[in-house]
Amino acid sequence: MKRGGDRDNMAPAGAIGSRTRRRAVFASAELGRELDKATFKAKQPELREALLEAQFELAERRDFSVVVLISGVDAAGKGETVNTLNFWMDPRLIETNAMGEPTQEERERPRMWRFWRALPPRGKIGIFFGIWYTVPIVDRVYGKSDDAGLQAAIDEILRFEAMLASESTLVLKYWLHLSKDRQRERFKALERDAHTRWRVADDEWERFQLYDTFRAVSEITLRRTSVPHAPWIVVEGSDARYRLTTTARSLLESLWARLENAPPSPAEAVPPKLPELKDRNVLRALDLTGILPRKKYHRELGALQSRLNLLSRHKKMAERSVVLVFEGVDAAGKGGTIRRVAGALDARFYRIIQIAAPSDEERAHPYLWRFWRHLPRAGHFTIFDRSWYGRVLVERVEGFAAEADWTRAYGEINDFEFEMNRHGIVVVKFWLHISREEQYRRLKERQETGHKRYKLTEEDWRNRMRWDAYEEAVCDMVARTGTSIAPWHLVSSEDKYAGRVEVLKTICETIDAAL
Amino acid sequence: MKRGGDRDNMAPAGAIGSRTRRRAVFASAELGRELDKATFKAKQPELREALLEAQFELAERRDFSVVVLISGVDAAGKGETVNTLNFWMDPRLIETNAMGEPTQEERERPRMWRFWRALPPRGKIGIFFGIWYTVPIVDRVYGKSDDAGLQAAIDEILRFEAMLASESTLVLKYWLHLSKDRQRERFKALERDAHTRWRVADDEWERFQLYDTFRAVSEITLRRTSVPHAPWIVVEGSDARYRLTTTARSLLESLWARLENAPPSPAEAVPPKLPELKDRNVLRALDLTGILPRKKYHRELGALQSRLNLLSRHKKMAERSVVLVFEGVDAAGKGGTIRRVAGALDARFYRIIQIAAPSDEERAHPYLWRFWRHLPRAGHFTIFDRSWYGRVLVERVEGFAAEADWTRAYGEINDFEFEMNRHGIVVVKFWLHISREEQYRRLKERQETGHKRYKLTEEDWRNRMRWDAYEEAVCDMVARTGTSIAPWHLVSSEDKYAGRVEVLKTICETIDAAL
Repeated sequence: MKRGGDRDNMAPAGAIGSRTRRRAVFASAELGRELDKATFKAKQPELREALLEAQFELAERRDFSVVVLISGVDAAGKGETVNTLNFWMDPRLIETNAMGEPTQEERERPRMWRFWRALPPRGKIGIFFGIWYTVPIVDRVYGKSDDAGLQAAIDEILRFEAMLASESTLVLKYWLHLSKDRQRERFKALERDAHTRWRVADDEWERFQLYDTFRAVSEITLRRTSVPHAPWIVVEGSDARYRLTTTARSLLESLWARLENAPPSPAEAVPPKLPELKDRNVLRALDLTGILPRKKYHRELGALQSRLNLLSRHKKMAERSVVLVFEGVDAAGKGGTIRRVAGALDARFYRIIQIAAPSDEERAHPYLWRFWRHLPRAGHFTIFDRSWYGRVLVERVEGFAAEADWTRAYGEINDFEFEMNRHGIVVVKFWLHISREEQYRRLKERQETGHKRYKLTEEDWRNRMRWDAYEEAVCDMVARTGTSIAPWHLVSSEDKYAGRVEVLKTICETIDAAL
Repeated sequence: MKRGGDRDNMAPAGAIGSRTRRRAVFASAELGRELDKATFKAKQPELREALLEAQFELAERRDFSVVVLISGVDAAGKGETVNTLNFWMDPRLIETNAMGEPTQEERERPRMWRFWRALPPRGKIGIFFGIWYTVPIVDRVYGKSDDAGLQAAIDEILRFEAMLASESTLVLKYWLHLSKDRQRERFKALERDAHTRWRVADDEWERFQLYDTFRAVSEITLRRTSVPHAPWIVVEGSDARYRLTTTARSLLESLWARLENAPPSPAEAVPPKLPELKDRNVLRALDLTGILPRKKYHRELGALQSRLNLLSRHKKMAERSVVLVFEGVDAAGKGGTIRRVAGALDARFYRIIQIAAPSDEERAHPYLWRFWRHLPRAGHFTIFDRSWYGRVLVERVEGFAAEADWTRAYGEINDFEFEMNRHGIVVVKFWLHISREEQYRRLKERQETGHKRYKLTEEDWRNRMRWDAYEEAVCDMVARTGTSIAPWHLVSSEDKYAGRVEVLKTICETIDAAL
């Protein structure tokens, strides 16, 4: 059947030698453990009932989701294990994701997009075949990356899994192992049977030649990524009964442990507070005095819009995409600015995402899920009217997010933007600023004039009361997420014409530089 | 830029002759209407403010969505019109969908999937370029279909749009027109300008040669699909100011008309009630006596699961997919049956969708949207545990849906299944049935035994009270949606073993026949 194959068929690798530390990971999975048929049959009903009960408890409570990674060596029984888990448990509450070759829509987004879109909602279990470990390990084995490259990939994975764990996800990682001899035996057995012969192709034997290397790389990777909130469980794969029972038991225990206890929060290094310089911060330092005469504004705006339009039709844009982020003080003119930007673009190639309250599907997933889902395809723009920075702005200031949550958000956001950047997405972030006095004038004006009325909410007035808290949050945000790949552009909108022109100019320059 | 092109660039066609009836559609759009600059400028602010206000009213009320189709002849200003609408209105409440070449993920689903996934939620406007009219018209012009084929396509479109209209969607269809002379002039003008020359390729001139044919086919199509709940508005395209103002005004008026009045419900032919034969109906006629001895059951089940597994790996399955629908009396054993079916399949290639209360995103879209979104990719199975039939079962019986809504659902469901069938999806539908006495026994048993407790809800007991109403609903459902392409399989689950075996057998036979 021509379907995306399981890209996760890899032989483990490793120079099994005198270095006992190296042996630690897989050694206990090469003992030839078996489970006799009678015990297996006898223990099954109880195990299955317990699994079902844990599943229903999970489904009913809906306070976390479970991500189960199934990886390991070729022919160690990954498929059979997943099928059995589905059969033993209620498959209606399991989503199995086979990550084969990425589809066109997936290739047009950052590497992790396909995993994000497949994350299970709270209350469900998502099983992943073909996982985020595959590419880093394979690349290292085939020499496409070096040790530093592998380490960088591992660091990213660690941050990603820590994020999942913090976002109400129980992460369990199973590695089904076979010793080299056992794998050879298993391949031969498969080849002898006409029904299973197709499963052992040249690829499998080719990878078998690299068994030792695969083992070494996998071992390093597993050792470095086995953390309390996302442990690796290495299971000896040769005996099906042992493998199935062990995996199922481990899953069961982990489920109950989590159902019964609050999750062990991954250690979060809370960065030290920046020294407070009340009188001097990036916002207060912003020059709000610039004024652009109306006539000049129209001339410059037109020129910049033409330039942006040309850039959006640039040949190289076919493989790139653009994400624009607009944050700002209420009434700073985000809407008007966004419309001037959109006005320069062909409506077919942009989408504006207004961030308000999340939908219930969004609420059932990790925080960043609702932003990942809107990442543009190649050649397209996504304009975020408010964004993922809500977590470190409104959610922080209003207390909607716990301190631990908004604190770790800085790092998660940086990772998110790094992913985008690596994929070639141009990320441009704006903070539109006005003085407190100007804000008062504008809110008053809105209250009084016709079609602007709609924009004014109770919230605008309430937010105004918290000016200082917001100012502090903005300064922290700029300090912690203003990275070289996605710097913050603080723009004075005190004169809205000057603000719009500056925004357009910045967008043009950033895209220009990127192409 | 290499991006999916606008497939909707078609020249209209028609033998402009003595037949005045034929001229009617486009004649009034060939009068050379213009709007002078002064009037245009003077009227703009008021028009824009009114549009914004209508939009915010729409967004605030969220009780319907707006689908705007933009179609028409090449160079009549479709892109400019959409861009202007986005600029005049609040683009944050508009989703513009350019339907270019379908992506791989779209090609693996039925033709209408891409439109379904792009439908705007209530409160928003979705503008579509490249619409469901394109393929039928182009196919007819190039002789890929005949008059009967065009008429069949038109009938489908009419039913689809009637469904949208009934599902809280305001459907507005704009056709931007140019006479043959005007189009020639426009092409030449575009060619003269170095900036726009790229817009007139050989394709455009080729289609221009077919102007008359395109016109004829478009005229027939427009005439037949201009219905009160989804009218065509033909706009003369040559003068930009006239075109923009007319389109915007029409949109504005339609928005307000809908905001102020309940929608004109599309005429729905309520099929005559079937003569009631209280004593004899398909459910009562079902033989519930068959019993399968346990030993024989295990043997047959194993054989059928192997057969299904082989079928699922069949070469031809790479381009097909399977949708299984399970409905049935409470406690009839849907869950157990589904698990036996799933147990035959590789977990990587199926997904079980449990239908319970819709999410808020689902609620904001037409009823069938939540089922369309789960249609399987090629080579995959989707198993629906309860389904779109909820509308004519629980929603009908419990009064959650108005009679007009569940009545029209029969036709909509038939269309939905026809779409799947045409795409090559194998659809197999089951009603699992047990006697009232057996149901009582099973519900009691569930209440008393351990891990089955979870399945029992108050609702089960309540539903039981409505046995007769459900029986009537099921009989109507079978009569009205039991089509040759997607027949109902009524299966006795009185003996659950016999039921499971019959289900598996039916699935195997249906897939077998389809391949």
